[in-house]
Amino acid sequence: MTLFEEARRGVINDKMRQVAEHEGLDAEFIRQGVADGNIVVLNNNRRQSLKPLGVGKGLRTKINANIGTSREQMSIELELKKLRVSILAGADTIMDLSTGGPVDEIRRTIIRECHVPLGTVPIYQAALDAFEMKKSLVEMSVDELFRSIEKHGEQGVDFITVHCGVTRENISRMRDEGRIMDVVSRGGAFTVEWMRYNDRENPLMEFYDRLLDIAHEYDMTLSLGDGLRPGAIADATDRGQVLELVKLGELTQRAWDRGVQVMIEGPGHVPLHQVEANIILQKRLCHGAPFYVLGPLVTDIAPGYDHITSAIGGAIAAWAGADFLCYVTPSEHIRLPSVEDVKEGVIATKIAAHAADIAKGVKGSMEKDVEMSRCRKNLDWEGMINMALDPEKARALRESSMPTEEEDVCTMCGTFCAIKVANK
Amino acid sequence: MTLFEEARRGVINDKMRQVAEHEGLDAEFIRQGVADGNIVVLNNNRRQSLKPLGVGKGLRTKINANIGTSREQMSIELELKKLRVSILAGADTIMDLSTGGPVDEIRRTIIRECHVPLGTVPIYQAALDAFEMKKSLVEMSVDELFRSIEKHGEQGVDFITVHCGVTRENISRMRDEGRIMDVVSRGGAFTVEWMRYNDRENPLMEFYDRLLDIAHEYDMTLSLGDGLRPGAIADATDRGQVLELVKLGELTQRAWDRGVQVMIEGPGHVPLHQVEANIILQKRLCHGAPFYVLGPLVTDIAPGYDHITSAIGGAIAAWAGADFLCYVTPSEHIRLPSVEDVKEGVIATKIAAHAADIAKGVKGSMEKDVEMSRCRKNLDWEGMINMALDPEKARALRESSMPTEEEDVCTMCGTFCAIKVANK
Repeated sequence: MTLFEEARRGVINDKMRQVAEHEGLDAEFIRQGVADGNIVVLNNNRRQSLKPLGVGKGLRTKINANIGTSREQMSIELELKKLRVSILAGADTIMDLSTGGPVDEIRRTIIRECHVPLGTVPIYQAALDAFEMKKSLVEMSVDELFRSIEKHGEQGVDFITVHCGVTRENISRMRDEGRIMDVVSRGGAFTVEWMRYNDRENPLMEFYDRLLDIAHEYDMTLSLGDGLRPGAIADATDRGQVLELVKLGELTQRAWDRGVQVMIEGPGHVPLHQVEANIILQKRLCHGAPFYVLGPLVTDIAPGYDHITSAIGGAIAAWAGADFLCYVTPSEHIRLPSVEDVKEGVIATKIAAHAADIAKGVKGSMEKDVEMSRCRKNLDWEGMINMALDPEKARALRESSMPTEEEDVCTMCGTFCAIKVANK
Repeated sequence: MTLFEEARRGVINDKMRQVAEHEGLDAEFIRQGVADGNIVVLNNNRRQSLKPLGVGKGLRTKINANIGTSREQMSIELELKKLRVSILAGADTIMDLSTGGPVDEIRRTIIRECHVPLGTVPIYQAALDAFEMKKSLVEMSVDELFRSIEKHGEQGVDFITVHCGVTRENISRMRDEGRIMDVVSRGGAFTVEWMRYNDRENPLMEFYDRLLDIAHEYDMTLSLGDGLRPGAIADATDRGQVLELVKLGELTQRAWDRGVQVMIEGPGHVPLHQVEANIILQKRLCHGAPFYVLGPLVTDIAPGYDHITSAIGGAIAAWAGADFLCYVTPSEHIRLPSVEDVKEGVIATKIAAHAADIAKGVKGSMEKDVEMSRCRKNLDWEGMINMALDPEKARALRESSMPTEEEDVCTMCGTFCAIKVANK
């Protein structure tokens, strides 16, 4: 039985109990949320040592960090370093998006090292496998694709992105409307190209039941990808994106009918004033399934600072009900991120998630800010550093510029410190 | 006649015409906005060479960078460097908050170098002058304070922060309610301390007409400061803050009656879900006077990243109607910012302002994103770099990690570039 099936039968299992404890909530709340499809518990049934993670309604907003090689940068060591830095900085999950080097071995190594849920995009590996066999990805067979998915399940991957909503009809109606950026999702673009070349429907949609069987076997959560997501704010919330979301809502119900947990992936590039509408639409069309958004980036013109454009969109999205934020690093749109970029991306996303949790009244969120403010009031520098999201950086900045006239102030105001004046 | 008086009489002067041209709007729109008090044109009448800047309803959201020495760091050269970096990065105005060294000379030097409107907080100088005469700031006389203000006007300062809303009644009612952080505004704290020691009302409130006379003479815009602004999100939108805002609304009308331009300063630390309410409240209570907000920071726990916590709050604030964002740097709460911090702060704030301008439909905003997206679609790297808010950083990131297999992609996806696949 999958976790979803147990929850539907009214059973509270150990994993639900662990999630409840972690969130400071009743186990029955978690069971009900899972049964309703509003909460997913990420935990492949082959990964018994993993601490299961809940994502969804009423829970703390979670954040994901993407790591992984590309054909341009294949160092496993570097990616393991990104993994460690991400978790240390507060990532709740990791996605391994490797598309270069021995990806099976890389994934196995990452799973061994990774004590948080791991996600993947199996079609990346299928594409790479085809490429390495000197085939074009369009020559990949349907069986090869499903074998790749099965392998990820066996290896213990907790959630997989599958672009099931990219259908012939949706692509055609999207292109009739016209877009600036067309398809920017890698998995989406592969799928579209495969469908065009083979003149066939998306196999993940056509053989969706086969996908559900695999997900069921390993209790893998399906993360229904948005292959037609906008890659420019000018394309946001357009016909293609909305039609795909409608389709994902239909596929959500079919997954629930089969006892499989589902979350929905969302954009991407969305202007500020459309973010909330995107969340409301997803929650309604997908019957409350958890929403996992990338960014969203609220402007296109800040390459080098897309962790900030995403933190703005992510904070508003999470506040409006998005449950899970995928980080974006300063290097997005420019290069594979460095270790430092990864840290910056995680922290920026953590800020967005935390700010939203305060706004949503999530238990334990506001308390941290109150504690920090008390340290500030007392000019307690060790306390401030310890309460900081990134104590290392806070300490480094402080130590780089110590006051000389009075010890307990900072070099911004020095002796004219407002807090000190007010404390008198 | 002040600009405000001319606008009220139906006159469109050269400065209004220049602002209109700069914004791509009708001059009559600017005149009407100024006459209604919804737009201010920053331009001290002694600064004829300055390009006047409009701030307010229907205009592009403006951003300010604070620079200035402290008693801990007194280098004029360093502050001039910050000035240049700020303007290059896109700051629309500069505030000189110097409180260390020869501040008159520093201000004169900055005014000479600064081709955008300059703001100051005269009470800082008054406090420093007292300190240097070995007096406590509480011994400063009312005349000394007004002489300091007059001097700033003479020197050509375009807008001054004056904490007129800090009244005995407001302080007392704020403290009855209770706060974590008490008063965190430097000018606010000086004022409160002065009032307590001298057992007198706030001189800027008591002799507000005298202040209006000076502002009128130099056509300086009054930026009515929020001396009781919250310094912790737990204190946001509390009794003290709201009472002060009510008072600032009253003072706004008195300034308009005297022909003086006014904007209102706002917080500070505000949780996400209270940001919009703060803007609505200000617009209503202050009859549409432009709103100049600091941040707002949507969480307290991210020292080292407060340019990001502020970009989130600033974007929402500007979208909801705030007209003018004061930057916050990564060093806020820890130290006087470095030149690099200043640049980071300006860019983050620029992102917030631009994202909001897109949401508000400000002319010329969305066009930039569309152009960037077209460059992305065409894998036109020079175009992308040129369209970037910070071309220097975009170029550096790109050049640090050039692809080897194919030239026109990046090292994130390499040969599996979604755009390239889709362009086929």
